[in-house]
Amino acid sequence: MSKSKKLVIIGGSAAGPKAAARARRLDEHADITIVQRSPDLSMASCGYPYYVGGLFDDRSLLLSTGTGILRDPGYFEGTKGIKALVGTEALSIDRKGHKVLCRDIASKKEFDLGYDRLILATGAVPRRSKVPGSDLKGVMSLHSLQDADALRGIRDGWTDGRAVIIGGGLIGLETCEALRLSGLEVTIVELMPHLLPFHDLQLARHIEDHLRDNGVEVLPSCSVTEFLGVDGRLRGVRLSSGREFDCRLAVVAIGVKPESSLARDAGLVIGGLGGIVVDGTMRTSDPLIFAVGDCVETVHRLTGKAVHNPLGDLANLQGRVAGENAVLDSNIEHPGTIQTGICKVFDMTAGSTGLMEELALKAGYDAISVVTAGPDRPSYMGGRILISKMVADRKDGRVLGFQCVGHGDVSRQVSQAAMAIMGGMTVDELVNADLPYAPPYSPAIDNLIMTAQVLQNKMRGLFRGISAEDLKMALDRGEAPYLLDLRTRGEHDAVRLGLGERHIPLGELRDRTDELPVEKDRTIVCFCKVSMRGYEGARVLMQKGWENVLVLEGGVAAWPYDKEV
Amino acid sequence: MSKSKKLVIIGGSAAGPKAAARARRLDEHADITIVQRSPDLSMASCGYPYYVGGLFDDRSLLLSTGTGILRDPGYFEGTKGIKALVGTEALSIDRKGHKVLCRDIASKKEFDLGYDRLILATGAVPRRSKVPGSDLKGVMSLHSLQDADALRGIRDGWTDGRAVIIGGGLIGLETCEALRLSGLEVTIVELMPHLLPFHDLQLARHIEDHLRDNGVEVLPSCSVTEFLGVDGRLRGVRLSSGREFDCRLAVVAIGVKPESSLARDAGLVIGGLGGIVVDGTMRTSDPLIFAVGDCVETVHRLTGKAVHNPLGDLANLQGRVAGENAVLDSNIEHPGTIQTGICKVFDMTAGSTGLMEELALKAGYDAISVVTAGPDRPSYMGGRILISKMVADRKDGRVLGFQCVGHGDVSRQVSQAAMAIMGGMTVDELVNADLPYAPPYSPAIDNLIMTAQVLQNKMRGLFRGISAEDLKMALDRGEAPYLLDLRTRGEHDAVRLGLGERHIPLGELRDRTDELPVEKDRTIVCFCKVSMRGYEGARVLMQKGWENVLVLEGGVAAWPYDKEV
Repeated sequence: MSKSKKLVIIGGSAAGPKAAARARRLDEHADITIVQRSPDLSMASCGYPYYVGGLFDDRSLLLSTGTGILRDPGYFEGTKGIKALVGTEALSIDRKGHKVLCRDIASKKEFDLGYDRLILATGAVPRRSKVPGSDLKGVMSLHSLQDADALRGIRDGWTDGRAVIIGGGLIGLETCEALRLSGLEVTIVELMPHLLPFHDLQLARHIEDHLRDNGVEVLPSCSVTEFLGVDGRLRGVRLSSGREFDCRLAVVAIGVKPESSLARDAGLVIGGLGGIVVDGTMRTSDPLIFAVGDCVETVHRLTGKAVHNPLGDLANLQGRVAGENAVLDSNIEHPGTIQTGICKVFDMTAGSTGLMEELALKAGYDAISVVTAGPDRPSYMGGRILISKMVADRKDGRVLGFQCVGHGDVSRQVSQAAMAIMGGMTVDELVNADLPYAPPYSPAIDNLIMTAQVLQNKMRGLFRGISAEDLKMALDRGEAPYLLDLRTRGEHDAVRLGLGERHIPLGELRDRTDELPVEKDRTIVCFCKVSMRGYEGARVLMQKGWENVLVLEGGVAAWPYDKEV
Repeated sequence: MSKSKKLVIIGGSAAGPKAAARARRLDEHADITIVQRSPDLSMASCGYPYYVGGLFDDRSLLLSTGTGILRDPGYFEGTKGIKALVGTEALSIDRKGHKVLCRDIASKKEFDLGYDRLILATGAVPRRSKVPGSDLKGVMSLHSLQDADALRGIRDGWTDGRAVIIGGGLIGLETCEALRLSGLEVTIVELMPHLLPFHDLQLARHIEDHLRDNGVEVLPSCSVTEFLGVDGRLRGVRLSSGREFDCRLAVVAIGVKPESSLARDAGLVIGGLGGIVVDGTMRTSDPLIFAVGDCVETVHRLTGKAVHNPLGDLANLQGRVAGENAVLDSNIEHPGTIQTGICKVFDMTAGSTGLMEELALKAGYDAISVVTAGPDRPSYMGGRILISKMVADRKDGRVLGFQCVGHGDVSRQVSQAAMAIMGGMTVDELVNADLPYAPPYSPAIDNLIMTAQVLQNKMRGLFRGISAEDLKMALDRGEAPYLLDLRTRGEHDAVRLGLGERHIPLGELRDRTDELPVEKDRTIVCFCKVSMRGYEGARVLMQKGWENVLVLEGGVAAWPYDKEV
C-alpha cells in the first residue's frame, strides 16, 4: 500500500461526504476523492419538502453549511482537503485492479480512479409507478434537487388545480403538506388501509383526520390504476374505485430502493431487500470496499433481521464509521437501527421507534401493548393531547416499541422512548423515570411515564384494556358490551362515541351501581376522555364483583372513528 | 387489623393525593383520609410562577383537573372515595396508639385519627432570610397559593417600581421572569459566582446574559445585607457591595427545607439534610409509616448518597409507590433520583440531569467532560444554538451527567440524556443512537449524538479540548497561547473574542501553515463558531507536527465572557 492511502468514495450526498470528512480528520495524509453524479454536493435532501412548501425560500441553504458557505468542490478542496468530482459517474469497479472506471458526464471522458479503500454511498432511487401513463410529464417524485426545483416552481407559478400523491409514508406526507401549503388542492392515495406504515391504524387515523381538517382528500385502501394524459402531459387519474378526476401533477412516493447495481455488477453480495450486505464495520463482502447509507441493508437491533432504512441520520452515522475504518483499518461498529422516525404533518407530528406490536409478535416476542392519551403539558399551560402506544416484552418487561401522534411535543416522547429501547430499559424502570419536569415542558407525570404506568398496570392485571380497534370489531361482530361513559355531563353532552353508551359521572358511580348490569359476568367497557377516570371506575367495579370490566384504551380522545356531536 | 384498612395521609398537595389515589385504585375498601392544613387540595404549585407572570389568567386552573373539575373535598369524596379534611393540622403522631392528633384550624377542635398505615407528605417550607428587616411587609417567598395570589395582585395592581429576587435557583429564576413580565423592574441577587446551581458557570452565564437582555439586573457573588423599611414595610435593600436601592418587593428564593418536625417529634429517623429517612419502599424507620415528596431525603442513583430533591414529579412518583405499599403491604421500590431539572427563562431554557463534573469527581468517578455548541435543527429550518456539557466516566464510558442551555429545544436534549443515564448507556453507544430525525425537529446528527461524538474523540485523544473557563484562567495567569480563529472573514469581522487571536479561514489553513508558530511545542488553541472547524483545523495541525493543539470547546457560540463587536 502506498504511503498515503487512496480512498475513493462513490456518492456525495450524505453518507459519502460524512465518510470523507471523518477519514480526513483521522488521516491528514490520505488521498480522498468523492465521485458524484449530480452537479451538487452534500444536498440537504431531507429539507426539500420544506423548501417546496415555502417554510423557507432561500434554495442555497440546502447546499450550504450552517455558516453560509456553499458546499461546492472548492469548499471540499479548501476546507477539507477532499477532491470532489461532480457530474461524474462511476461506471464499474475493478476489484482485482483496485480501480473504479469513471466518466465525466459533460465531456463523456472516461478515466480510472485507483483505490486502496473504496466506500460506496450510492444511495437509493425512488420506486417508479408501473400503471399506464407513468411516463407522462407531470408524474414525478420528490427525490432529487431537480425534483424539488420543479415542485417549488409550481408553488411560484400556478397555485390552483389538484395534485395527487401516491403513497402515505413519510415522503408522501411531507410532500402532501408542501403542495397543500403551495396552494394546491391535494389528494393522497394509499394502497394500505391507513397512512403511515410504521403506525397502527388507531394512531394513523388521527393524522388522516388532521389532513382532512387541512383540506386534503385522504383515500386509504385505494390506488391509482391509470394516469390520464393529453399530448404527453398528465391531465387526470383513474382510481381503483373507478373514479376519475382532473389533476396536473402526481407525485409518486411509494418508497425507494437501494441503488446497488454498481456493487452487484462488481460481484459484491446483495441482500434479499436489494441492498448491499455489510457487517457492523460497514465492510461489504470485499474487505477493501465499504458501503453506507441508503444503498445498504442495516440490521434491526431488536430482530437481528436486515432492513432497508433509508434515512439521513443513519446515513451520517454509518458514513462516520466507514470513514474511520477505511483509513485506520480499524473495526469500530455501527450497531444497527431500531427504525426511529418522525414526520411533521401540518400542526401534528407522528413518530415511532422500535417494533410495532405486530412486528414484535412476528419476531417471536411475547408482546403486549397499550394505547394512552394525555396532554404534553399541564392544562393551565395549554397542554395538547398526545396519543401513544407502547409495546413491551411480557417476559422481561423490556420496552420494544413506541408510537406517538399529536399536536403536542411528540418529538421528545419518541426520543425518550428510543433511548429507553436502546438502553434496554423495562416498563418497571420507565414507571419511575426521572425526567425534566417544569410546566412549560411537561406534566408532572410525563406522558411516557404515564404510558409505562398504564402498561405496568395492564401487565399486572390491574388494568384490563381493550383497544378502540378491538372494541369496534366486537361491535361489528354483533357483540353488545355494556359501554359506560364516566365523564361529566358537560363532556358527555358535547361529544359521544354514539354507540349506545350509558353515562354515569365517576363521582356518582359508587352510589349508582344498582343501575349497572345485574349479571356480574357481563362485559363492561369503561371510558372517559383519556380513560384515567375510565380506569378508576373500572377499579371500583372490579372490586365490587364485576368480573369482566375493561377500559377503553385512550378513551374518547384516542377514539379513531366517527363520534356523535 | 380491621377488615378495611385505615390509611391516613398527612399533606394534600402533590405526593399525598397521589398516594391516596393509588391506594384507592388498589383497594376499594380501604378507609382513606387526607389531612391538609391549607384550605386547598392538589394545588398545581409548580404553576404559580406562570400564573403570577400572566402566562394564564384563570386561577381556578391551578386547582382543577384537566377537564375542569375543582379538586375540592367533594371531588375527592365523590370521585375517589377519599375523605379530605382541609383546614386541618396534624399536631402529633402516637405511634404506639396508631393515631394522629389533629386540630380543625377554624374551630380549634382537636380529635384523633386512628391509622393502620400512615403516609407523611408534609412537604417543605421555604428557607427564610436571616438578615435584618426580613420580617418587613413586602419580604416574601413564592411557596403557597396565598403567596401566588399576593404576587399576582401586584401584577394586577402596581406595575412600576423594582423588585429584588434573592436566589438564582429554579424558583428564583421562574419568579424573576414572572415579575418582569408583570412589568416590574427586577434585580436578582445570588450569593454564588453564578446563577443556576446545577449548571456550570460557562452555561449559566448564557442565561445571565439573556436575563440582562430582558432588562433584568443580575448580580452574582452578591447578597442582601439588610432589608430597609418604613413603617414596617419594605422600601429598599442594602447589598453586600454597600449599594442601596429602593424596592417595594423582595422575594426570597434561597431554597426550601423538609417539613419534618412532625416526624422528628414522633421519633422517626431524620437524615443529615433534615429530611425524613425512608427506604426504597418509602417506609420510614417505623414500618407502618411512610413518607414521600419534599419532606424526605432521596437516594441519588449515581452516588448512592442522600439528597433533598423537592420536585413535583418526584413527589408524584414516590406517592404512587407509597400508596401501593401502604394498602398492599408490598415492597415495590422507588429507585431514587438523578436530579433531573429544567427551567424556562424568557426565551431560553436551562436543564440538567445526572452529575456535574465536580460532583462526579467528588463521588469518586474518573470524570471527563466536554462542552459543545450546535443548532437544534438545520439552519434552513431556523435552528437555534444549544450549548451542552456532557460528563462521562473515563473508566467504563458511562454517561454521568448532562447540562444544556439555549434558545432551542433543550427539553428533548435533557430528556434523552436522562434516559441514557438511567439506561446505563455509554458515550460509545450514544455516538450511534437512533433518534427521530426530521428537519422540523432535529439536525441529521442530533445535538446529543454530536456531543457524544466530541466526547468520544476527546476520550480517544483525537480532540484535545480546553474549556472557556480554563482558557480564561490561563490568559489571566499571563499565559499566551496562540489563538487561532478559523472562521470566515465575514464571521471574524462581525464578532471576535478580542484576545489577540489570529485569523486564518479553515479553507486557507493548509496553505498558510508558514504563518503559524515555528515552535512545534507552542500551545495553539483553535476555534470557530461552534468549534467544528476548530476541530478540523486542530486535526490538520496535529498531523502536521504541532504537539500542543487544543480546541476551544463550543467556540465563539459558547464563549461566556465579553466579546469584541
